[in-house]
Amino acid sequence: MKKCTDEEIVSRLPHIAGWEVVRPEGVGRLFRVFAFDDFSGAVAFCVQVAMLAEKADHHPMMVVEWGSVQVSWWSHELKGVSEKDFEMAEATSALYDS
Amino acid sequence: MKKCTDEEIVSRLPHIAGWEVVRPEGVGRLFRVFAFDDFSGAVAFCVQVAMLAEKADHHPMMVVEWGSVQVSWWSHELKGVSEKDFEMAEATSALYDS
Repeated sequence: MKKCTDEEIVSRLPHIAGWEVVRPEGVGRLFRVFAFDDFSGAVAFCVQVAMLAEKADHHPMMVVEWGSVQVSWWSHELKGVSEKDFEMAEATSALYDS
Repeated sequence: MKKCTDEEIVSRLPHIAGWEVVRPEGVGRLFRVFAFDDFSGAVAFCVQVAMLAEKADHHPMMVVEWGSVQVSWWSHELKGVSEKDFEMAEATSALYDS
């Protein structure tokens, strides 16, 4: 697994609707906010994404609060975004849309 | 339910070990980081706290990632910390210690 270049990220980003790249502390992450009608819906989604993460052995950061879950995918060891993160972002959106 | 004064917060804080007050965007919150050995332990704790929150009809913000859960309690409508938040913080620590 290797880190995506900025060009690769720019080229792939349009294919995962709703996601953007953020760079806290200079490390690129794929980031999207998912909306829910209440707290329990947000928590349930967090658990669904967690199952996905365990299966893939690749783990996101999630901010859970009433009405929303913020999901960030990046590859800690590469200090940036990899192909795997794009796959996980796509799978996360698919869960939300299902 | 009313907002705690700064004096009340300073007086109560020593009674909930591990918690601190943070003030993002000027709004006081009770904040603590809980450590875990893996991702699934962190997610399981997030769900436990969520159950507590639903029962109390008072909801925290939680940041879940591999090895940790950051929990923030505050009263959105009061734009600060209330008695209820101290109760929830105490209950959250009790869950972690159990």
